[in-house]
Amino acid sequence: MENMNAIPNIPGTNKKRVVIAGAGFAGLKLTRKLLGKGFQIILLDKNNFHQFQPLLYQVATAGLEPSAISFPLRKVLQNAGDVHFRIAEIERVDAGANEVVTSIGRLKYDYFVLAMGAKTNFFGQKEMENNALSMKSASDAILIRNSILEHFEQALLETDPKKAEQYMNIAIVGGGPTGVELAGALAEMRKYIFPKEYPELDLSKMRIAIYEAAPRVLAALSERASASALKYLQKLGVEVHLKTRVEHHDGSCVRLSDGSSVSSKTLIWSAGVTANAVLGLPQEAYGRGGRILVDRQNRIRSHTNIFAIGDISLMETPKYPNGHPQVAQAALQQAKQLAKNLVKANSGEKEEDFEYRDKGSLATIGRNLAVADLPVGKIKGFAAWVLWSLVHLFTIMGVKNRMLIFLNWTWNYFTYDQSLRILLKPKHLSNESKLPEVKKELADS
Amino acid sequence: MENMNAIPNIPGTNKKRVVIAGAGFAGLKLTRKLLGKGFQIILLDKNNFHQFQPLLYQVATAGLEPSAISFPLRKVLQNAGDVHFRIAEIERVDAGANEVVTSIGRLKYDYFVLAMGAKTNFFGQKEMENNALSMKSASDAILIRNSILEHFEQALLETDPKKAEQYMNIAIVGGGPTGVELAGALAEMRKYIFPKEYPELDLSKMRIAIYEAAPRVLAALSERASASALKYLQKLGVEVHLKTRVEHHDGSCVRLSDGSSVSSKTLIWSAGVTANAVLGLPQEAYGRGGRILVDRQNRIRSHTNIFAIGDISLMETPKYPNGHPQVAQAALQQAKQLAKNLVKANSGEKEEDFEYRDKGSLATIGRNLAVADLPVGKIKGFAAWVLWSLVHLFTIMGVKNRMLIFLNWTWNYFTYDQSLRILLKPKHLSNESKLPEVKKELADS
Repeated sequence: MENMNAIPNIPGTNKKRVVIAGAGFAGLKLTRKLLGKGFQIILLDKNNFHQFQPLLYQVATAGLEPSAISFPLRKVLQNAGDVHFRIAEIERVDAGANEVVTSIGRLKYDYFVLAMGAKTNFFGQKEMENNALSMKSASDAILIRNSILEHFEQALLETDPKKAEQYMNIAIVGGGPTGVELAGALAEMRKYIFPKEYPELDLSKMRIAIYEAAPRVLAALSERASASALKYLQKLGVEVHLKTRVEHHDGSCVRLSDGSSVSSKTLIWSAGVTANAVLGLPQEAYGRGGRILVDRQNRIRSHTNIFAIGDISLMETPKYPNGHPQVAQAALQQAKQLAKNLVKANSGEKEEDFEYRDKGSLATIGRNLAVADLPVGKIKGFAAWVLWSLVHLFTIMGVKNRMLIFLNWTWNYFTYDQSLRILLKPKHLSNESKLPEVKKELADS
Repeated sequence: MENMNAIPNIPGTNKKRVVIAGAGFAGLKLTRKLLGKGFQIILLDKNNFHQFQPLLYQVATAGLEPSAISFPLRKVLQNAGDVHFRIAEIERVDAGANEVVTSIGRLKYDYFVLAMGAKTNFFGQKEMENNALSMKSASDAILIRNSILEHFEQALLETDPKKAEQYMNIAIVGGGPTGVELAGALAEMRKYIFPKEYPELDLSKMRIAIYEAAPRVLAALSERASASALKYLQKLGVEVHLKTRVEHHDGSCVRLSDGSSVSSKTLIWSAGVTANAVLGLPQEAYGRGGRILVDRQNRIRSHTNIFAIGDISLMETPKYPNGHPQVAQAALQQAKQLAKNLVKANSGEKEEDFEYRDKGSLATIGRNLAVADLPVGKIKGFAAWVLWSLVHLFTIMGVKNRMLIFLNWTWNYFTYDQSLRILLKPKHLSNESKLPEVKKELADS
């Protein structure tokens, strides 16, 4: 039992220890489902909060604060019993020793669950990785928000209209839900907010464009939903370029696969994800997209006490031969099933196979404009938009956050003015050091 | 008129141009009072938002988000006419040319108003400046919040209780309103929140201490208010060390003027301010605390068309021979008077002298605990606390922000749990780069 304390201050116990890496939809749901079921749970995440990713685009477009969609894990787990949260990064699994090697030390486990999700996939384009903005975390979203606001301030200082346009234009790579929702929200800012706040700029020159390699936007949804979404985007004045790849961005100019190019400082990359990395598993453990291959109980191929759930996992089933979509629903369902199975395994019962139940897909393009593919049928427009709002409001955790988001949405809906356009830079990055120091002497004398 | 456009894209005009440096209480009030009065107004600030400083301590203690007390200037000035806001830092006044030199170029003025406020005064202690946390901006407040949360996470990893205490302890230099309000809020976190979220730590060992050089806290208030505040602080378990200076902090240990020392990673410096610096004025323009000496019309001594208002100014009057206190009330009143006087000066009327009207002082120490010195008398306890809450709620700008703050306060009051404990680090500072890169190859292959 001694080695159980390899991470200082986590008490040893006679209970079986489940170490869960990642507190996203999958990891946090699993943690909550296992509480009080006779395990010692250790939850690790690189952040001290859980984040409701579907609304990140509203953080990027100044509609919500990060705190409205982020949940401090210690608060979620208050008075939850034998559960220990630590901020840590997973470095390696030492499966032979039943230990996970982390940034804060080694940790013994009885069961280890990989739930670290996915990250932006730049498909090896290093230069894109350096110049483009990604959209996977609250920090990413704030960076996009700040970058757009800074570019608008910069545009005001340009006397050459062409250069001003370069600062105003926004190019979005990828026409999935993230790209579409972001483009729609930005188009509404261009329509309702920027004209009031930047009357000195010619906003008719501002271009918002989506570049999508596939022949349609929202390729994961039905053709009908795609067609409606395209119509809505065009209605909002978003340029949609299908069957078009972005090949190059040097920080000012975007070069496209058709040979043309567009002047734009801002390039937002939402063109795909790859599973987060972990060392120590054999090469054959991985499948498409860097995802970890699992059986119907979410167990990895090489070790019986290691599991993977959510976006990081790849379960090939007769119904989903290419694995489930990397969405919140699949992560939550797998977490619930795994919690049941761990309890069963612990008491020697037979584990159950996982089967994904697709509850439908939703995407919002703008005010009163959304599309939904539901098991009962396809809806669009205002009805889909109301449904989208309700689903997101009720899926998000915490009464206070629901109230805050509801208040924000209601306010924004009636005022046409989400108002969080604050350029808050971390202190050491501000210009404070550039201030003249001369008066210091005067002041001190 | 040509030179009027030295900053690109600000149109020339036949109106007299007022350049206002700083959008704090003084600068923003002046801007709003001058709207529609026949001037071209140019407002400059290093941030794109106005900030309600009195509630910064609640940002630092995770009770409010920065956005709840920050106001995007472009939003405040929507549809306001001939007013131009730019993010800029003032480098120098070229009074001979009637120009101000800024980080974004030169700018002609007819009237120039310095309203850049004050910053933390470390009294020349460089080492303190490097190791201590200050409390003058939203970035400062977030840095304090993050620093305390990080230290608690660190304390969890320590097996040596002495080292854990070093991470938990908090030393506050200065017993003014900022220090007192911060100490009270932290003491309430220790009582209501930390025990639920850090059950593994021995919080009885956490020390929160105020070090004040003067013989009493809240020295600007009445002796009676000081005595009540001291009692309240002690009731909350805050150590108050009067007539004690902090002489040294090496990042782990605080050395005091009485020769003793205290183990603490966190040192918050709220011991004084010095006026912000500006180059180009003659040495005799400055008075005590680096403040700019002004006459009864807030005009600086050397130039008839340059003014200073708010914390950066020093007006010595018979009633206030050492100048007015550096508080919001004085800044707002001076801004209103100067707006009137500029209109009068423009139409050849005689300007009026400024006279400060002290409306009273308030400070809150904790839940139901506050002190108030009012013209009508002194109050304390619950009544003062309610008054404090109402005054702050109604002084803050914007219906939405009032609603948000009211919602937050009500929530926190009844749940004893302000919940914004999210460690959101700017992206390039996160540990993301430490993640193993090996799977990238697998994913791309």
